[in-house]
Amino acid sequence: MRTSRVEAFSDGVFAIAATLLVLDLRVPSADPDLTGTLLRLWPAYAAYLVSFLTIGIIWVNHHTLLEHCRRVDRRFLYLNLLLLIAVGIVPFPTSLVGQYILSEHGAAAALVVYGLGALLIAIAFSGVFFYATYDGRLVGDKPAARRIWDEGRLFPIGLVAYTAGIALAFVAPIASLVIYGLTALFYALPILPVRSHEERR
Amino acid sequence: MRTSRVEAFSDGVFAIAATLLVLDLRVPSADPDLTGTLLRLWPAYAAYLVSFLTIGIIWVNHHTLLEHCRRVDRRFLYLNLLLLIAVGIVPFPTSLVGQYILSEHGAAAALVVYGLGALLIAIAFSGVFFYATYDGRLVGDKPAARRIWDEGRLFPIGLVAYTAGIALAFVAPIASLVIYGLTALFYALPILPVRSHEERR
Amino acid sequence: MRTSRVEAFSDGVFAIAATLLVLDLRVPSADPDLTGTLLRLWPAYAAYLVSFLTIGIIWVNHHTLLEHCRRVDRRFLYLNLLLLIAVGIVPFPTSLVGQYILSEHGAAAALVVYGLGALLIAIAFSGVFFYATYDGRLVGDKPAARRIWDEGRLFPIGLVAYTAGIALAFVAPIASLVIYGLTALFYALPILPVRSHEERR
Amino acid sequence: MRTSRVEAFSDGVFAIAATLLVLDLRVPSADPDLTGTLLRLWPAYAAYLVSFLTIGIIWVNHHTLLEHCRRVDRRFLYLNLLLLIAVGIVPFPTSLVGQYILSEHGAAAALVVYGLGALLIAIAFSGVFFYATYDGRLVGDKPAARRIWDEGRLFPIGLVAYTAGIALAFVAPIASLVIYGLTALFYALPILPVRSHEERR
Repeated sequence: MRTSRVEAFSDGVFAIAATLLVLDLRVPSADPDLTGTLLRLWPAYAAYLVSFLTIGIIWVNHHTLLEHCRRVDRRFLYLNLLLLIAVGIVPFPTSLVGQYILSEHGAAAALVVYGLGALLIAIAFSGVFFYATYDGRLVGDKPAARRIWDEGRLFPIGLVAYTAGIALAFVAPIASLVIYGLTALFYALPILPVRSHEERR
Repeated sequence: MRTSRVEAFSDGVFAIAATLLVLDLRVPSADPDLTGTLLRLWPAYAAYLVSFLTIGIIWVNHHTLLEHCRRVDRRFLYLNLLLLIAVGIVPFPTSLVGQYILSEHGAAAALVVYGLGALLIAIAFSGVFFYATYDGRLVGDKPAARRIWDEGRLFPIGLVAYTAGIALAFVAPIASLVIYGLTALFYALPILPVRSHEERR
Repeated sequence: MRTSRVEAFSDGVFAIAATLLVLDLRVPSADPDLTGTLLRLWPAYAAYLVSFLTIGIIWVNHHTLLEHCRRVDRRFLYLNLLLLIAVGIVPFPTSLVGQYILSEHGAAAALVVYGLGALLIAIAFSGVFFYATYDGRLVGDKPAARRIWDEGRLFPIGLVAYTAGIALAFVAPIASLVIYGLTALFYALPILPVRSHEERR
Repeated sequence: MRTSRVEAFSDGVFAIAATLLVLDLRVPSADPDLTGTLLRLWPAYAAYLVSFLTIGIIWVNHHTLLEHCRRVDRRFLYLNLLLLIAVGIVPFPTSLVGQYILSEHGAAAALVVYGLGALLIAIAFSGVFFYATYDGRLVGDKPAARRIWDEGRLFPIGLVAYTAGIALAFVAPIASLVIYGLTALFYALPILPVRSHEERR
């Protein structure tokens, strides 16, 4: 099975989930103090930024992984579908964080849900990653598959960081969101070696 | 006519319909008991999961079918359009189920509508499937077309299961949703043989 | 300039505009008479169907036209952008028709707006069509370009039909919507000859 | 790394951000004076048009730039992600302008936010542009890279124009929106030379 259409469907879900985030930036109409309302909306901007980065960076990694795969199989498609289910849900915890991070009661719950969503993505991506690279199953080149698989040993760092963020949610919600943003940036490090071929048009 | 652009448009509709499902996961702002509200939202999570799976699995089958097609014609495009109309409507019954599955009065109606939507997708997919495989019309390879066509004899199982789900809606709405989820998983079985070529980049 | 990325962006707008239509199918939560409400929603279903067909059929024609084009230029991209602006707006008049077609006061206005939107698409598509086919500008093959250009003489029929629908809006709103649906189906006729090559993978 | 999937993800975000703009064209249901309400909605139509043009034209430029790139690297992907974050936010200031451009108090704030969003896009696009063309880094052909880089000297005109629009927001909001629209059209000028190859299918 060719990889191109998996990419198309996945790219669609990634791009839509990221772009739907903007729907949570809203102000009531005929607000007499629009400037103040816009400034007080900063948690929603912060949540937009962290979530867009999270989705965008996981997309870069997904993209890099699939560049290495010569083919995909049916099981890969279903593991990938689980990843997309987790990515598609991101606008929901993002909206919770934007609405509740400053609230007395809801902040912990909102940031725990956010962290669980991020953990789900990290775990599903690991599943896709290890399934594809195990024993050169989908990656054509065995030594390359081995080398990529080895890089996967860095993934637990992300899982630990998200778990720390969830624990922090109960005492310091804003610090918790900062952890989530930094963990997304951690995944932006060039863990996967980039395939070095030039594009042939 | 090349198959690639049909895939692009179809992938778009599949991916958007799946990703729009998240818009039904919403909580009121300034809710004093956010944790409780989030827990009571479980029917919406369940509906999200079943619908995303349904769309994702039909996408895998659509993908597999088109891998076998060497070309498409205008009639195929219109049959495919009917399928996309049915897929595009999924967020509506999903929203109904999330809102009404626990309600005294609305549950039956919500789950009947959901089942009718699923039936519509199953019937439209059968139409696309049998049109493409009949007598090797679009599938280039006649013996392959014959073999795929034969697999289509399993489709009525899905139709019967969805009909059973619709009947169950009147007495046990939650069981009805479970049936819909299981039927989606039934379609995930590798009914269609996967095209065995390796991707040529 | 290659045609492939114009197709990707256009397909995106077509697919999203069509899939956003579902957001107008909504019921209030905790409605005591859900079945009745769902039945009374028929104008919204009808508007969904007509608009999805309109977008889907214009997509098929756009697809067929671009199959004939060997390249695109900057002016084509901007004409195409005008078409996409018109396609992207479709969910707005669709929503108006769903809400107002049965209303005493608003029905005429809603259906006039719908018809103007449809006219805009038809005119913009004609612009893209005649620009691409004129004197073999973008279609590589001059005789083919000439033959396709000639088919364009059928386009005024669509414009007249939409104008008739707008006039009907003032006296018979439902008949007006029927005219819009039939005009969409008229555009589904195989006006453009299909390019006869087989796909080379 | 191939350019094709960057294009797919970017096209998705561009197309979705543009198509989500329509969600701000809304009327209340059962409005007794629908015609009047539709006419009074003109600021929302104007904002829709300016924003769709802005996104569409930046897309054409993005498309033209990537046609020249033979490959992309990881840093390019992250610069591009910043551009997409800015593009994805467009529906928010568009909605503000549609709601507040005629308001006594909010108009200045709405148009300042709009201008800041447009500036962000212009700056992020410059970043992507200069990164890709510097010393033929991603553009294969060094003389071409040099020639394209030189065209970038026109970009400050856009930045100055957007800044002027922001200043105007405080005294003449409608003129400010006109400036934003004209600046989008300025970017439509054929600054980048079009790659002259014919498409090879």
